[in-house]
Amino acid sequence: MNQQNGRKNHPYPLTVSLNPENQETPVHFVEDWITPVELMYKRNHFPYPSAADIPATLHLNGLVDHPLTLDYEDLLSWPSKTLVVPLECAGNRRTSYSPRVYGVQWQKGAISQGRWKGVPLASLLKRAGLKTTATEIVFSAIDQSPDGTSYARSLPVEKALHSDTIIAYELNGKPLPFKHGYPFRLIVPGWYAMASVKWLSKITAIDHPFQGFFQTEDYVYYPHDDTDEGKTPVTTMKVNSIIQQPQDYDVVKKGINKIKGFAWTGEGRIVKVEISTDNGRSWHPATLHSEPQHPYAWTFWEFLWEAKCEGEFTIMSRATDSEGRTQPMEPVWNRKGYGYNGIFKVRVKVE
Amino acid sequence: MNQQNGRKNHPYPLTVSLNPENQETPVHFVEDWITPVELMYKRNHFPYPSAADIPATLHLNGLVDHPLTLDYEDLLSWPSKTLVVPLECAGNRRTSYSPRVYGVQWQKGAISQGRWKGVPLASLLKRAGLKTTATEIVFSAIDQSPDGTSYARSLPVEKALHSDTIIAYELNGKPLPFKHGYPFRLIVPGWYAMASVKWLSKITAIDHPFQGFFQTEDYVYYPHDDTDEGKTPVTTMKVNSIIQQPQDYDVVKKGINKIKGFAWTGEGRIVKVEISTDNGRSWHPATLHSEPQHPYAWTFWEFLWEAKCEGEFTIMSRATDSEGRTQPMEPVWNRKGYGYNGIFKVRVKVE
Repeated sequence: MNQQNGRKNHPYPLTVSLNPENQETPVHFVEDWITPVELMYKRNHFPYPSAADIPATLHLNGLVDHPLTLDYEDLLSWPSKTLVVPLECAGNRRTSYSPRVYGVQWQKGAISQGRWKGVPLASLLKRAGLKTTATEIVFSAIDQSPDGTSYARSLPVEKALHSDTIIAYELNGKPLPFKHGYPFRLIVPGWYAMASVKWLSKITAIDHPFQGFFQTEDYVYYPHDDTDEGKTPVTTMKVNSIIQQPQDYDVVKKGINKIKGFAWTGEGRIVKVEISTDNGRSWHPATLHSEPQHPYAWTFWEFLWEAKCEGEFTIMSRATDSEGRTQPMEPVWNRKGYGYNGIFKVRVKVE
Repeated sequence: MNQQNGRKNHPYPLTVSLNPENQETPVHFVEDWITPVELMYKRNHFPYPSAADIPATLHLNGLVDHPLTLDYEDLLSWPSKTLVVPLECAGNRRTSYSPRVYGVQWQKGAISQGRWKGVPLASLLKRAGLKTTATEIVFSAIDQSPDGTSYARSLPVEKALHSDTIIAYELNGKPLPFKHGYPFRLIVPGWYAMASVKWLSKITAIDHPFQGFFQTEDYVYYPHDDTDEGKTPVTTMKVNSIIQQPQDYDVVKKGINKIKGFAWTGEGRIVKVEISTDNGRSWHPATLHSEPQHPYAWTFWEFLWEAKCEGEFTIMSRATDSEGRTQPMEPVWNRKGYGYNGIFKVRVKVE
């Protein structure tokens, strides 16, 4: 970056819509493990809740022996854990689908990575005495549409009890910012971020499949345009990668060029990122930079490419995770445009 | 826009590159006549000049009887004029060309509109005694590449003497910001903004065609990919328009929808903006909002569209200026991707 009068040039969030506020992380310019709060992507379905509606307490009820009511101070007194977790909107890279899909036009930046501190949900459920008849836990938030539909999602009990599913109250070492869900936000590592409910006010244990709009209609893969046949819920993040440098339609010099980016997955960890500079005919391993103490965190990678001749080239990145999942050349289209994880491509000209 | 704790959600510049710093105006969200400085697009060929290199004085020499040297305070003592002028990068909308063009990937926001105050260049040239043998005026700036190429451009004497070609020292009522060319910036209304030289240090009258890189190689329309045949210089802005609302691939409701945007031209003024909602088969006039006292300023327009049935629609805007120029369906491709002014199109789904 360039110094001028002691200040670096810095990137800005990308404005997708103002109300509700949707913004992307300027993902080509993210160089740090932790995305600064001011550059974190924001995905809202509704206008922000008013200050008066912010929940003072969190209620845990339903199929439990002892319902709980906790305020922010109460939660601070519980044993906590801190996790570096990337959140990715299920609609990230939606604009890459062909045929194009309507809806919020996310390019590549509906992903960012935070340091989340909070209390394992399992601790709360244990204290409350979760009944064995419970099959799902419902998370209800206070943000709502003008017609009164609130945001709510459920998790299967097994995922709710996972030791890394937390009720976060801090982000990047500071109290959770209002726009990221203050005072209470569910963080579900590995799942697309529709599961990480902001402005959480109520946790309810139930014994039947939750039927909320954002559970059964939205955030669902519909493989067909004209029928709901074959629909499946959106859950874990697919293995994915981005080329941060060079950018699409850049002009680069003959000689050694650094290609770099990052890769992530919702299951296991990234074990391989391969680069092709000949439109997919041959692939070469990139060097990976991961932090073993942060198993959910994304993996930076880089590859030195010797551009030996002038011309136009397509560069691709393809990540593979420890579950054996690899990015496909073209992911399966779905009507709402979720889970795009096609091999990442940029076109460059060598001069 | 949405209120939250008394603060409106607000858009950010779109980061295109960090060094040199290139940013777009978030043009879909511009509602005011005057673009706030913090949202103005920035186009740099080089890193910012260092503070030590900022010119303390402006020199006017060459084919004049009395060379002038002026500092910022001197300039303030001259009779000034204030003009509302949109600046548009010649590469704006470059990403719309097919085949795609390499180079800085400007989408639609390399345009913004400022209130510029300064001294007519003609006054300076008159005081200096411009010789009748002068044919061009060269404007040299201090920003330069690592190998020492400085930015410089020339104007034909007639355009240099135009009463609205000014040496600006204020933008939007405040001293010219550093990143927009402090202390002296040439403003050439009607021309693409490569002519509006920032960090101006020297003005030289010459009697031959200026041969600088940014005059004869860059900022030139090359109609062919493989030969320079037929090349012509980039000069005035073409007639152009943008649809700000709805945005591409938005979902809209059945019934009345407001379509809005703005239009501009480098010659004459906007006299007509037509809208098509049936992929160009029929066209309907939009309502224009212009400010006659600001003849260079863009013209906001709007059109109420009754979406009578569900389905997918292509909406188009087509502006016409008082010189009889109209936006083409497809502008002529050129190798460097300048001057894209094709009819603006958005695709929407009515539900």
